[in-house]
Amino acid sequence: MNDKIYELTDLIDRDLAESKYSFEEKQKLANEIKPLLSDNSIVLAQANPISGNVKYNALKAKKWIEWAELLCVKAVVFPETFLIGIPFGDYLVKFPVVAEECWEWLEALAKTTGKTKVIIGFVEFNNDKFGKKYYNSVAVLADGKIERIIRKTLLPNYSELNDYRYFESAPVDSANRITKINDKNAGIIVCEDGWNDFDFFDRNLYKVDPVETVVKEQHPDILINCSASITRAKKEQLKHNMLSFAAKKHSTPIAYVNQVGSADCVSYEGASRVYNKNGELIFRAKSYEEQFFIVDPFDDNGKIYPLPKGLEKTLNSQKAFTLDHEPDLERTYKTIIQSIRDYFKKTGFKHACLGLSGGLDSTVCAVLLADALGRENVFGISMPSKITSSTSKNDAKELAENLGINFLEVPIKDMFDATRETFDGLFASMENKWEFRYKQSFTNDNIQARARATILWGIANEFDKCLTIATSDKSEAYMGYATINGDMSGGYAPIADVTKTKLFALARWMNENREQKNAIPQSVIEKRPGAELAINPKTGKPLLAEEALMPYEFLDEIIWRVENLNQSINDMINVEFVYEKSEPVSKEQKLEWLEKFFRRMSTAIYKWSILPPAPIVDARSINKAEYHQPIVSAGINYKKTSFEEKLNMLK
Amino acid sequence: MNDKIYELTDLIDRDLAESKYSFEEKQKLANEIKPLLSDNSIVLAQANPISGNVKYNALKAKKWIEWAELLCVKAVVFPETFLIGIPFGDYLVKFPVVAEECWEWLEALAKTTGKTKVIIGFVEFNNDKFGKKYYNSVAVLADGKIERIIRKTLLPNYSELNDYRYFESAPVDSANRITKINDKNAGIIVCEDGWNDFDFFDRNLYKVDPVETVVKEQHPDILINCSASITRAKKEQLKHNMLSFAAKKHSTPIAYVNQVGSADCVSYEGASRVYNKNGELIFRAKSYEEQFFIVDPFDDNGKIYPLPKGLEKTLNSQKAFTLDHEPDLERTYKTIIQSIRDYFKKTGFKHACLGLSGGLDSTVCAVLLADALGRENVFGISMPSKITSSTSKNDAKELAENLGINFLEVPIKDMFDATRETFDGLFASMENKWEFRYKQSFTNDNIQARARATILWGIANEFDKCLTIATSDKSEAYMGYATINGDMSGGYAPIADVTKTKLFALARWMNENREQKNAIPQSVIEKRPGAELAINPKTGKPLLAEEALMPYEFLDEIIWRVENLNQSINDMINVEFVYEKSEPVSKEQKLEWLEKFFRRMSTAIYKWSILPPAPIVDARSINKAEYHQPIVSAGINYKKTSFEEKLNMLK
Repeated sequence: MNDKIYELTDLIDRDLAESKYSFEEKQKLANEIKPLLSDNSIVLAQANPISGNVKYNALKAKKWIEWAELLCVKAVVFPETFLIGIPFGDYLVKFPVVAEECWEWLEALAKTTGKTKVIIGFVEFNNDKFGKKYYNSVAVLADGKIERIIRKTLLPNYSELNDYRYFESAPVDSANRITKINDKNAGIIVCEDGWNDFDFFDRNLYKVDPVETVVKEQHPDILINCSASITRAKKEQLKHNMLSFAAKKHSTPIAYVNQVGSADCVSYEGASRVYNKNGELIFRAKSYEEQFFIVDPFDDNGKIYPLPKGLEKTLNSQKAFTLDHEPDLERTYKTIIQSIRDYFKKTGFKHACLGLSGGLDSTVCAVLLADALGRENVFGISMPSKITSSTSKNDAKELAENLGINFLEVPIKDMFDATRETFDGLFASMENKWEFRYKQSFTNDNIQARARATILWGIANEFDKCLTIATSDKSEAYMGYATINGDMSGGYAPIADVTKTKLFALARWMNENREQKNAIPQSVIEKRPGAELAINPKTGKPLLAEEALMPYEFLDEIIWRVENLNQSINDMINVEFVYEKSEPVSKEQKLEWLEKFFRRMSTAIYKWSILPPAPIVDARSINKAEYHQPIVSAGINYKKTSFEEKLNMLK
Repeated sequence: MNDKIYELTDLIDRDLAESKYSFEEKQKLANEIKPLLSDNSIVLAQANPISGNVKYNALKAKKWIEWAELLCVKAVVFPETFLIGIPFGDYLVKFPVVAEECWEWLEALAKTTGKTKVIIGFVEFNNDKFGKKYYNSVAVLADGKIERIIRKTLLPNYSELNDYRYFESAPVDSANRITKINDKNAGIIVCEDGWNDFDFFDRNLYKVDPVETVVKEQHPDILINCSASITRAKKEQLKHNMLSFAAKKHSTPIAYVNQVGSADCVSYEGASRVYNKNGELIFRAKSYEEQFFIVDPFDDNGKIYPLPKGLEKTLNSQKAFTLDHEPDLERTYKTIIQSIRDYFKKTGFKHACLGLSGGLDSTVCAVLLADALGRENVFGISMPSKITSSTSKNDAKELAENLGINFLEVPIKDMFDATRETFDGLFASMENKWEFRYKQSFTNDNIQARARATILWGIANEFDKCLTIATSDKSEAYMGYATINGDMSGGYAPIADVTKTKLFALARWMNENREQKNAIPQSVIEKRPGAELAINPKTGKPLLAEEALMPYEFLDEIIWRVENLNQSINDMINVEFVYEKSEPVSKEQKLEWLEKFFRRMSTAIYKWSILPPAPIVDARSINKAEYHQPIVSAGINYKKTSFEEKLNMLK
């Protein structure tokens, strides 16, 4: 395809975002583009819907369809369930009015269609006597009518996906999945329907492969997959290899349309694409941007926009823990930026406030917020206590100045003292009635963290459309090393799925790759993390996090092994950790750290349940949108016992 | 069955709970009971497992099996997935070591079995090349071996149920479901497998009815359903009618074993039972207690323990909103008591602290905590501010005295003032940078609520095994009428699924039905609720909740209609509310209240996501264990628009 097309469709993207053009201007632009298009041109509508806001989604679809019609392309293809907006939720169960509206909007859209086929995902009622209330469907609209409806067969129900909760599985019905686009037969595939190749996967979740069925029974000229597939570490590797494999295996081009945008915790990265019948990537859209992406699936000379930097490197990498986070940093950065931006936009917030401690977590959050929302919309508050070092105070200030965000310093001494005095009287009286007072406690540490959260939530109460930000990271969330109603409290938690070692790498990466270099003071990246809430009696200095926990390199590898390999203590004790390559660790020490991990993790489950929404970034996470564990399961033993021990205990 | 049996098995229950007896004493008791038993006696093991704690569950099962063997009964039947402990969670996915341990414990248990058949639920690996990783299975153990394994066919995936997330559906395989008990053929049914009768339900979730298949193909003498079915409003009505219907329809007795106990948010009420082949209830175990329940499914002269008081009345009642909560109050009370008790026991907590405001919510919570944990384990703290009335202070104190719980009064004035002063300086400086400060805000209201939560969490930090209690109720949770890091913050939220009108009824009920009468001061029940956080400028008195929201009778009916009838604004505007029977409401007023409900609800979704775990009590709830709605779906329009309006908007 002529590169000129993409220069010109960039203008369409701007119009779609900002409604820039009059009808005449649109026609003029369309007339410039039309001569450049081949007969098989179709549009992959890589668009960003809002969950449940059917009217918004329908009106957005209409704008995209209008452009497609102006260009006289043969079809415009939207992502899965676009009209209802994925991720859907239990409003489908509780408020069927949403699905009723979705159906009516689809019918209304159909009435306005002409020659350009519109292929669009929606939620359809199942009026049968059996099964779930809905189908996850894709409609083909043309000539003022609904030409056909394709219903999804494979209904994922793992991680963040809950299709089976709402939808009835439909038989593949291959004949119905074929629609004519120009003179080609296109077979419609709905997301997961394309993810069950028997040769590609070692183990399959389902016994049917709709792609194979459609190809064998209908011999389509092309497969079109309407998707909404979230970004995760290693997902691009899987997706690229699988789609390429399937196109080649079936000797059929595959056009894959992916949603873009974020919703609460899940992020879709776009990067819609086409593979030719040899499995070669011939088109790929932008990542993390809405794009009106024109492709000709039969033209090998396509446009391939780059993936986030470094990601290509991971396409063939092994599944092994590494401290080299670099190839995943731009993706991580863009995922979080998009997540913050969409969370604010879709919930109506505009401004963010956060505590700036001078530590790594709040520093990284501040940079991300400034980039996502604009520096004028971010307020960083330094809230030192008597334990806060002057380095930390200076680092917070310097960061804010570098970023150009709003900044103030507010000592919490008075709030701390008033609370401490209230507690002194109270606890002394309570002790007489309850004798089980701790000799040592975290009470003072937490007063500081809670005073800070009280200030931040006060700001959110006092200023319009302002949201408080929680700065917890993933390593510390696993360890429950965060204060309830303190640093883990907020309206959104940007880095709760980023481990500490990756955060350090991200900080360095941002210093090198943001337009403004070195916004993060070097000392923030160099100092060892600590909450500065308590003094370590052994050193007389503020307690470091690794003193309370274990080395972050070791901790992050445990997390990785748990999430990616599902290992137990028994599995981990006998393998060499990356950390051990440079620092010898005795067997006893290793077992102690492993047991500490699982012990602390077990009591952290409650904290996970009240963590604010956070972008999912990693291959797996403890984000409550994807991971559910009963709090009462704190008694699980993560170490195997032998069969003999069991028999003995039963005696 | 001879009533004497139940007097004597009460002693077995005590032994199972407290390990009271030596082996000789056990034998002596067994010898007393044995002559009273018929040949077809079996034990319904209505027991309380701990999710994920396989060792605990296996050792508990062993104790029950030992008693069954001592009595030489033909079988002992445990609930669904007893060995792993329902509700399971994603630890099945993340930590397969738990399921490995489960399998080994099952094998070890099998080795120790003798003549008494053990029928017990567990989680089995699916070693097939296809499908989910596990089966939800029931094993029949006898003579030192695993005789057979029955795999569940129907896998629920609605409300709090997530079977399909973990389990592969197995074909019914009716022949394999039959095991001999004495000389009878028993067909094993696993929970949901028994909930799909084509004649009983208007609409069926699944196309197969395993009960019908087993009956038609195998003609069993009895069906045994191993269940774990949670309690909810109106569930007993459904369960009783359905089981009775199925027994009669198939002319086959049904023995139904239900789990007892609570886990986080879900509660199983026991009340295991037997219906004879005419559909008549002939046995029913205790509710909300573990029970070693001996039954003879072929003896019509069985033992029927009462349901919670009033519940029988609801068996044939219509599905309509009512302010007469009475028939559901004992069930509500017992569900919450069991939930608190098990949450504390299973997570290792012993003591609770809560704020006592003198208002209804905290008052009801205090009574429930005292009853669940013992009054000595509860600390009520009155934390008055300058808005707190002397009535409220007196009511809090009187309540604590009546209950005999620990009590102290701690004014929050100093904490409030320190915070307010910190804010004054901060906000004045901020205003220069951020011009969008509110003229009026909730900041002062929330400082009070947050200071109180800081005190309560401080107590939890300072005293061993102490948990903070959140006192939010359901009506206010729907309206987001609760303070983040304030009254909605805590380790557990006992009444978050109880609406305000039901709470009033529950308070009255507790005053009449607890051993100690009238523990709740009359004025608490009589005064109109208000958070006492702000003054209403119109009245000069503390703002009442109904002034900020709407009449609770009206609000609670909206909630009921949303949860039970899935109604939208359009559905509700034209029906008469119970409230309207005594208080005329204009159409405009009604629409205003309805729109306010949905507007406030939309912005409360975030608060639901960080509410602490709370017992599910109602037919439906917003508890995050069962209800998931994206926070970004705040833009849903809960009012239909016409097709013409849609077409116009698309022009």
